[in-house]
Amino acid sequence: MRVELVTVGDELLLGDTINGNAAWLGRALAAAGAVVTRSVVVGDELDVIVEAVTAALHRADAAIVTGGLGPTYDDLTRDALAVAAGTELVRDPAIVERLRRRSAEIGRPLHDMALRMADIPATGTPIDNPMGSAPGLRVELSGKFGKKVVYALPGVPHEMRAIMTSGVLPELVARMSGPPPRRRTLRTACARESDLAVRLAPVEALPGVKLAYLPDPAEVKIRINAVGPDAAVQLAEAEELVRDLLGGYVYGAGEETLDRVVHRLLVERGETVAVAESLTGGSLGAELSEMPGSSASYVGGVVAYATPLKASLLGVPEDLLARSGPVHPEVAVAMAVGVRDRLGASYGLGVTGVAGPEPQDGHPVGTVHVAVAGPGTEPVVVTPGLPLPAASAGVRPLVRRMTVVHALDLLRRSILGLGARYEWEQAREDREGLG
Amino acid sequence: MRVELVTVGDELLLGDTINGNAAWLGRALAAAGAVVTRSVVVGDELDVIVEAVTAALHRADAAIVTGGLGPTYDDLTRDALAVAAGTELVRDPAIVERLRRRSAEIGRPLHDMALRMADIPATGTPIDNPMGSAPGLRVELSGKFGKKVVYALPGVPHEMRAIMTSGVLPELVARMSGPPPRRRTLRTACARESDLAVRLAPVEALPGVKLAYLPDPAEVKIRINAVGPDAAVQLAEAEELVRDLLGGYVYGAGEETLDRVVHRLLVERGETVAVAESLTGGSLGAELSEMPGSSASYVGGVVAYATPLKASLLGVPEDLLARSGPVHPEVAVAMAVGVRDRLGASYGLGVTGVAGPEPQDGHPVGTVHVAVAGPGTEPVVVTPGLPLPAASAGVRPLVRRMTVVHALDLLRRSILGLGARYEWEQAREDREGLG
Repeated sequence: MRVELVTVGDELLLGDTINGNAAWLGRALAAAGAVVTRSVVVGDELDVIVEAVTAALHRADAAIVTGGLGPTYDDLTRDALAVAAGTELVRDPAIVERLRRRSAEIGRPLHDMALRMADIPATGTPIDNPMGSAPGLRVELSGKFGKKVVYALPGVPHEMRAIMTSGVLPELVARMSGPPPRRRTLRTACARESDLAVRLAPVEALPGVKLAYLPDPAEVKIRINAVGPDAAVQLAEAEELVRDLLGGYVYGAGEETLDRVVHRLLVERGETVAVAESLTGGSLGAELSEMPGSSASYVGGVVAYATPLKASLLGVPEDLLARSGPVHPEVAVAMAVGVRDRLGASYGLGVTGVAGPEPQDGHPVGTVHVAVAGPGTEPVVVTPGLPLPAASAGVRPLVRRMTVVHALDLLRRSILGLGARYEWEQAREDREGLG
Repeated sequence: MRVELVTVGDELLLGDTINGNAAWLGRALAAAGAVVTRSVVVGDELDVIVEAVTAALHRADAAIVTGGLGPTYDDLTRDALAVAAGTELVRDPAIVERLRRRSAEIGRPLHDMALRMADIPATGTPIDNPMGSAPGLRVELSGKFGKKVVYALPGVPHEMRAIMTSGVLPELVARMSGPPPRRRTLRTACARESDLAVRLAPVEALPGVKLAYLPDPAEVKIRINAVGPDAAVQLAEAEELVRDLLGGYVYGAGEETLDRVVHRLLVERGETVAVAESLTGGSLGAELSEMPGSSASYVGGVVAYATPLKASLLGVPEDLLARSGPVHPEVAVAMAVGVRDRLGASYGLGVTGVAGPEPQDGHPVGTVHVAVAGPGTEPVVVTPGLPLPAASAGVRPLVRRMTVVHALDLLRRSILGLGARYEWEQAREDREGLG
């Protein structure tokens, strides 16, 4: 099933809002076996919305419109769908009643303008919105393209997702036929895209299999696509081969992010982690506490952003700081040990470095030391060579993000006993040593 | 000038990547006085890219394509532009030379595949890429739409931005004529969109002025648009009126985020802040350290995610924790005072609460206490009623984000002596007390 997305809103064209809805819908539809073939953003103009929806239905099997369903007069999606369907808007008494009840519950008056949310095209049906006021809409349109369906959803992300999940996806899935294409995404950390690609050449040679590389700072997702009648078998074979070739670089699959993997590994072992941060300012802890239930694995942390706090809060020896400055591998180790012991966790992570955009104490931007202190083993520190752009603008968030990924991955490797040195880096250094 | 954006890449349709480039381009073009009238995402298919670019030029004055300029065989933007221009790709020796030099610098072999990045349509010109390998392209196309220009930029965000800023925007600005539309965005925190809209009714009544509301968790940006020959004057009048009507709710304008405002206010006064976090897990510190130079105002923090750490690391009285549990206004105050004193900052911020998705110790999700302890004044604590959806899915990041905003805004109000109670809330409570 081919689906086109139409996102409505001047704020998206002006860049005040990022189109996260389109990405979420793309993932949700792909997971259900449908494919988004085009995604268009248009402004709050009636004619343009009508044209975009109609054009989408000419090309695709169904269209999903998000945005423009709110109460204000620049919300025009209802009107556009009525025009496209060649019908009128009618006020739905059941929706009016629900809006009245909702207003009463939160103790606010129901403005006349809000009743616009109860207007729907005469040939449409509302879709219940469990998270907010404006219902979704389902409208069947007829034209040269035959008879096709368009779904309209509010632009507020959590409302859109709720309506999509409960009211739209089940209906779309019921209308699909044939075997869906098979896809699987494996997640890697701390390896470069080009190194992965060279190593995965044998997978590219498998029949019916295609690889796509999706790089993020210090992470690369590898999407394996298999098509054809044997797609499921080919996908499984390809996945096994990728995992064989990449070894410990693969940390998870699908939606399993690095913080979730680390959380799962710790909880399985009844262990915990505490973090001592510097250049990341709190981002590492924020990441470790993102998921529900994270208090089972994450006890807390210390952000020693100012250098003297590394001594007073974490017990980093003052003479080490005086001698080496705050950006030094031994400082990262002392931070990891200090936070582990002072916060009573199984593992301590310590990070120090230069986020930029300016160098610090003679260390270039991107100099980063990441240490882990585990239960009953010697602390380990790594100094990754972060691949950074030559120009300095925008480098700071990159360095901070890469540092968080390297710290989480070092913790993962440490828990799994994989060793802190990455085997390819090791192999390259051996080669260079021999050459 | 009307510009359409064409973003190329299967990963965007599949939702593996969010289209942040389109948002950035929308902002950059709007700031330059151009307007993005449509933005479309298409997959890695030659015919579809050709059609999308041609359709864009039928409607707009210029088109910008991002993505599909890399070295691999699914990078088809170069080929598509050659087809659209009715010409061939030719290999540019200067680009080849630059690619060779770059490879030598980083000590990597130059694969044959990488030379694809040196192929450009015969009628096109390369645009220097200061941040990476693939140059941008400028191609003039002729058709029923006359003679129009399309710019192609790599999809890697920092490369796209660099080429756009140095190589494309200046050229677009030089081609514009007439007075640009006037826009100004004011930023508010901790007020609800509907309360703002009711209060700003007099601004909506001004001739030639339109308001748009852009809500984020606990923040609303208000964009003032003015058109016509007197737009500059009308914009200034409207801004003054908005500021009068909203008072201390307006914290900044344009790109001035709340963390930047707080940083500026602290640096102006030679003061600093330290944070004691619980449910936010480090996000508050991450936000305060996001901008370059933040060490001048932010000294660090303590994340006491596990309850006992609130006593051991921050000095929150153990009997208070035993009596009231960790989610209590007095705990937030003790955290703020503790972190201020232990880290030696001018201000301490303390946050505690329930991020969800499950209630905690009988407190519903979204119960949040935010405290500030300043220099020489009594600590202040607020307990905002966060407007949350009824359903619990996705509520956790919302609560965490709203808590960060409330904490930063409380600090701002405290520095400015605006008081912790929001005047409208106060007025409403007074009314309800009288009624």
